[in-house]
Amino acid sequence: MRRIISVTVVLIATFSVLSAAPSDSTQLAGYTRDNSQSERQWEEKFRVLPDPARIRDDMQRLSARPHNVGSAYDKDNAEWLLSTFKQWGLDAHIETFSVLFPTPKQRAVELLEPTRYTAKLEEPAIAVDPTSGQKAEQLPTYNAYSIDGDVTAPLVYVNYGTLEDYEELDRLGISVKGAIVIARYGHSWRGIKPKVAAEHGAVGCIIYSDPRNDGYFQGDVFPKGALRNEWGAQRGSVEDMPLYPGDPLTPGVGATADAKRLSLSEAKVLTKIPVLPISYGDAQPLLSALEGPVAPEAWRGALPITYHIGPGPAKVHLLVKSNWDLKPVNDVIVTIPGSELPNEWVIRGNHHDAWVNGAQDPVSGMSPEMEELRALSDLLKQGWRPKRTIIYAAWDGEEPGLLGSTEWGEAHADELRQKAVAYLNTDGNDRGFLEVEGSHSLESFINDVARDITDPEKNTSVWERRKLYDISKAKTDEDRKDVRDRSQLRIDAAGSGSDYTVFVDHLGIASLNLGYGGEVDSGIYHSIYDDFYWYTHFDDPTFVYGRALSQTLGTAVMRLADADVVPLEFNGMADTYARYLDELEKLAKKKRDDAIERDRELDEGVFTAVADPTKKSVPPPRLAIPPYLNFAPLHNAIDTLKTSAKNYQTALAATLANGALAKASAVDEKLIATEHALTNDQGLPDRPWFKNQLYAPGFYTGYAVKTMPAIREAIEQDKWPLADQSIEVVAKVLLNEAAAIDGATAELQKLTQ
Amino acid sequence: MRRIISVTVVLIATFSVLSAAPSDSTQLAGYTRDNSQSERQWEEKFRVLPDPARIRDDMQRLSARPHNVGSAYDKDNAEWLLSTFKQWGLDAHIETFSVLFPTPKQRAVELLEPTRYTAKLEEPAIAVDPTSGQKAEQLPTYNAYSIDGDVTAPLVYVNYGTLEDYEELDRLGISVKGAIVIARYGHSWRGIKPKVAAEHGAVGCIIYSDPRNDGYFQGDVFPKGALRNEWGAQRGSVEDMPLYPGDPLTPGVGATADAKRLSLSEAKVLTKIPVLPISYGDAQPLLSALEGPVAPEAWRGALPITYHIGPGPAKVHLLVKSNWDLKPVNDVIVTIPGSELPNEWVIRGNHHDAWVNGAQDPVSGMSPEMEELRALSDLLKQGWRPKRTIIYAAWDGEEPGLLGSTEWGEAHADELRQKAVAYLNTDGNDRGFLEVEGSHSLESFINDVARDITDPEKNTSVWERRKLYDISKAKTDEDRKDVRDRSQLRIDAAGSGSDYTVFVDHLGIASLNLGYGGEVDSGIYHSIYDDFYWYTHFDDPTFVYGRALSQTLGTAVMRLADADVVPLEFNGMADTYARYLDELEKLAKKKRDDAIERDRELDEGVFTAVADPTKKSVPPPRLAIPPYLNFAPLHNAIDTLKTSAKNYQTALAATLANGALAKASAVDEKLIATEHALTNDQGLPDRPWFKNQLYAPGFYTGYAVKTMPAIREAIEQDKWPLADQSIEVVAKVLLNEAAAIDGATAELQKLTQ
Repeated sequence: MRRIISVTVVLIATFSVLSAAPSDSTQLAGYTRDNSQSERQWEEKFRVLPDPARIRDDMQRLSARPHNVGSAYDKDNAEWLLSTFKQWGLDAHIETFSVLFPTPKQRAVELLEPTRYTAKLEEPAIAVDPTSGQKAEQLPTYNAYSIDGDVTAPLVYVNYGTLEDYEELDRLGISVKGAIVIARYGHSWRGIKPKVAAEHGAVGCIIYSDPRNDGYFQGDVFPKGALRNEWGAQRGSVEDMPLYPGDPLTPGVGATADAKRLSLSEAKVLTKIPVLPISYGDAQPLLSALEGPVAPEAWRGALPITYHIGPGPAKVHLLVKSNWDLKPVNDVIVTIPGSELPNEWVIRGNHHDAWVNGAQDPVSGMSPEMEELRALSDLLKQGWRPKRTIIYAAWDGEEPGLLGSTEWGEAHADELRQKAVAYLNTDGNDRGFLEVEGSHSLESFINDVARDITDPEKNTSVWERRKLYDISKAKTDEDRKDVRDRSQLRIDAAGSGSDYTVFVDHLGIASLNLGYGGEVDSGIYHSIYDDFYWYTHFDDPTFVYGRALSQTLGTAVMRLADADVVPLEFNGMADTYARYLDELEKLAKKKRDDAIERDRELDEGVFTAVADPTKKSVPPPRLAIPPYLNFAPLHNAIDTLKTSAKNYQTALAATLANGALAKASAVDEKLIATEHALTNDQGLPDRPWFKNQLYAPGFYTGYAVKTMPAIREAIEQDKWPLADQSIEVVAKVLLNEAAAIDGATAELQKLTQ
Repeated sequence: MRRIISVTVVLIATFSVLSAAPSDSTQLAGYTRDNSQSERQWEEKFRVLPDPARIRDDMQRLSARPHNVGSAYDKDNAEWLLSTFKQWGLDAHIETFSVLFPTPKQRAVELLEPTRYTAKLEEPAIAVDPTSGQKAEQLPTYNAYSIDGDVTAPLVYVNYGTLEDYEELDRLGISVKGAIVIARYGHSWRGIKPKVAAEHGAVGCIIYSDPRNDGYFQGDVFPKGALRNEWGAQRGSVEDMPLYPGDPLTPGVGATADAKRLSLSEAKVLTKIPVLPISYGDAQPLLSALEGPVAPEAWRGALPITYHIGPGPAKVHLLVKSNWDLKPVNDVIVTIPGSELPNEWVIRGNHHDAWVNGAQDPVSGMSPEMEELRALSDLLKQGWRPKRTIIYAAWDGEEPGLLGSTEWGEAHADELRQKAVAYLNTDGNDRGFLEVEGSHSLESFINDVARDITDPEKNTSVWERRKLYDISKAKTDEDRKDVRDRSQLRIDAAGSGSDYTVFVDHLGIASLNLGYGGEVDSGIYHSIYDDFYWYTHFDDPTFVYGRALSQTLGTAVMRLADADVVPLEFNGMADTYARYLDELEKLAKKKRDDAIERDRELDEGVFTAVADPTKKSVPPPRLAIPPYLNFAPLHNAIDTLKTSAKNYQTALAATLANGALAKASAVDEKLIATEHALTNDQGLPDRPWFKNQLYAPGFYTGYAVKTMPAIREAIEQDKWPLADQSIEVVAKVLLNEAAAIDGATAELQKLTQ
């Protein structure tokens, strides 16, 4: 495996050569020199195969009709995928689970006072858009896993409905107790909004799409442009996935026919209050009817009104009733058996279910995945034999709650923990820059892959383009220098929101989530307008980024499957975790400083002095000054981890130089254990499903990741003894990680003895 | 004079005593102990006199009808002020100048393509607002000193129309050459918008009030709330006042009947292209008709449209024709002769003319000024005799171009340079916090005054409330610490935009501009709705802040007039100027760093790599790397200034302790010279009217101040040799300032010898 310093030198010295010469001039990480050469040849054969025209055709087929969980066309798609994969000569099957999936029976949002308005709750068909009129098959706009409810109450506008927004309401002396809140989409994952509203005593929750966020403020609206129009609304799950994702009735186990199921009332992931999404056309009459304080500037959207908070005089009736049946989810699973290491699995997935037609979400990721499989089947016919087993999955039921992937992961948990080398996820695709998030043991690997993929719009690699993009977006000189000087581009940790969750967070399998994006403004997310017409007019009409996605993921799958040693790398991981520690220390210091400053300002009378007496204003509560935390165990653990990482890379280089990799499977076994070492059995405080101690979706953010989550959330939530305990827990996990790496190093050293 | 360290100690030790006990427990700066006591007694007598009911009545009278320059009611107000002052037994007269003041004959804004729309250009009467219907006397919406023009051209949206906005247009590959630009009000002074547009080749300019800036986005619109409604528009001057203010035809001299006048074509301060202001009701059809790129996020306002930039397809016809007559401006001048030092003048002013009824602007400052005069006339009857001469001015013609004050200042320039101790300005008033800007030699003085004024809403001094406000608004820990630790609150330098300009910038007279504000949202600026109805519903309905303004300014005037030595202070000045130097060094460094970074990114290909090929994008131009500048002369001069400032305070303390102030007039003479020392005869590069080398309105900002303007603007505009020369010039001026202070110190030392 390449070392950081030498890479930097190579890049500076021979950049023009690298651009001109074929990329096989450098040795692949985890490969002997000979195997690296032959791998490069196979990969190059692979990358000419994905065909934009086929990606387009597959998208048109898969998105031709609404295909939500339980729908006829969802099943039809699964069967069509199965038969297509089989036609290509691949070993494919459907694995079915039986999951709770509520669909709406009754929905109503009515303004009763001071004027009357009945929300349409309906996205109209658009003449130029052929599939938008498939009314009979479209799921109505709703939030899955909202409990049933029928409430009438005064309305309060709560901005994004985050914890900070409720602190602001406290400052304004406004309570949502007994009220229906209206929150706008954005900033937090939608499921957080009813959760936090209920915690504050609200009895109902309406979520609307403000034109500031994905409507006319951002660009022309559909069908003139790509943004959300007046009546477009965002469906979506409000299952409390930060507690656990997947089937609400079978946490931790696969939702097979005979699984033991919770009753509805035992399922803690349903919302506590009813919730419905609405369009801004429906929201404007409600928001216009609010009085009370003018919303703070950051709360105001782009509707042509003065945003008031309430409560009232707007009084609203909210009604949600669902059918709570179990529905099947059909995962389509393809297996390409490994020729040498069949018990090591490289897994690749994208979901196939959608909220409606879902051309962008998920089909723009699903059809490139199909092209990968078609191309790989072609390579198999040409004689390529992957060393490890490759498993391709077309997941069902991602939209309601990562159902298909989570149930599959739970059903096969033991085997996966033992065999899975890595999981590679996509979930849609757009034009633009390569976006990668996930496990830092794969950071170096995916950087190398990205160096070999050509950007369809620019005469450069997607890696180079991303690097220049990162330079352009760097917020500080320090960040910009980091991008320029580091041999590898940093990848973000993965939060949640797609099918990698069970792999990263529950099973401890090294995972990546990838896609292209950043050049497409979009306001059709989870609406009936996310369809073939929209995608081919406003996203990637020539499907060249679809091809790039196929090339990227296919190359990554092959390179993982064929490597002499699984190409994990730990120096970058240790470097990144050290940064997390630094962040946590700064966060703890900031909490302390902020509390001291807050209390000092209360003593000085700042809040009283600056308050306008014509407006209600409540000083913030006095804060207890946080104690100093003992970060020493974490410092020590990271030092140990850095040493282990360095030793592993030294041993690996020596082994590869020797060509002595006959029994690399023993090394792989230890390497697979390294990612498990990031988990523990207890899981996170109060959410045991989440085993990973390095990465988790935030309990109050939903999608957005919290790294070292037990510590970070304890600090954020002022749980100081828990923070100190969690430092010990994470330090222990990192020492386990170091030991696991040492285990792999020892196996490597055996090979060269 | 009080020293900084002792004040801090006093504040900490005796704050509760200070709050409870009368404020005469501390000695006034510039006063012997005995005189301090008697001054405090007179000031306390003064402060009970201003009467909110009278301020209200005076506002109602002055704003009863439109009273723009040249109107019948403007003259009527001047005569009423004169007779009122005379009734109070004061020596008052009217001084009249004859100035160029264009008023509109023809105005049109028409959208010709792709649809047709004719702008209303009319603010409607509102039923509940009695004066809004005085149509016959209202000046129409227009921008005074726009040249005549009749142009038809494609439209381009230019955001605020600042230099930075045109750089953004360059990046988007959009030229305004031959186009009519539409800019929104805000960020720069309005006169900058047509000036910069013309420099970039535009043929016409429309300025509109976006609801984002002072309409429904900010709060409920008039008459429900205080903000600008759909058809409200902002009148205002576009005279190029950063070149010179006052009558365009008589720069540098008083516009007396026999003054030598430029021809219209010689007057460089008229705009180069026609310009008109419009409401957002009139702007929306124009902006909606634009295509081309979507405006960058920071450019988007709050209209319910997607903001595009153009050019076109919107094609617009703009017509402006004015009557270019000379009109009279009538300054009302009151003189209260000094009993001991009649040749030292303390000057106080607020303008009386308005764009329309002008209850807030300017009458909310003018009627408290009247109350000061009424109260002072009362004190005179009680036996008070100010040591120095007090001059009160009610300026005319401020709105079109600071006409009345500038012409008066120019007409009496020699006498003012010799006699004026200080000028104190107000220009309207609102509820909220004391706002002060101006000369730093008066910083310590005005802090002391503010400590003696009680905030009408809080049980505290306006100084204490402002301090707590500054703590709450501090952007960094360092800034917050500065507010807490420094004995005096910092005041901002004054830019332009009101009648202090000729005093500060042209004559070099220590000046302050004061007012209360920060608690009133307002969208009636320069509209027909700025009237008694609006002010008494949405601003300071009980006029308690009007009373506070009277108390503040009256106290300041008395304290300046009665002092044993003019209470200027130079330690704070030197401290502030050292900060300006620091800012300039950082600015020069930033310009260097930014140029190096820009060129590096051009070399790396960043701009090309990140550009979306479906959108036009032009890399920014390569920059020459700025040279290092020689700031040493400025460092040395500031060191010298600090020493002189310290020596002066030491000498003053010794003198006051001695009570030896029989011949203080010699000291005063030197002190008056200190503020002149900040000017030089040459003035600023390319704008010789601006003599002050420390403070000036920015050539490209208009209202906003540039401190050490010759250096700062040279750096901003990449004029490096000029920057180096200007450092020498400003250093020379500061050495002159130090020498002037030394002159005052020498006079003080004579008194104690």
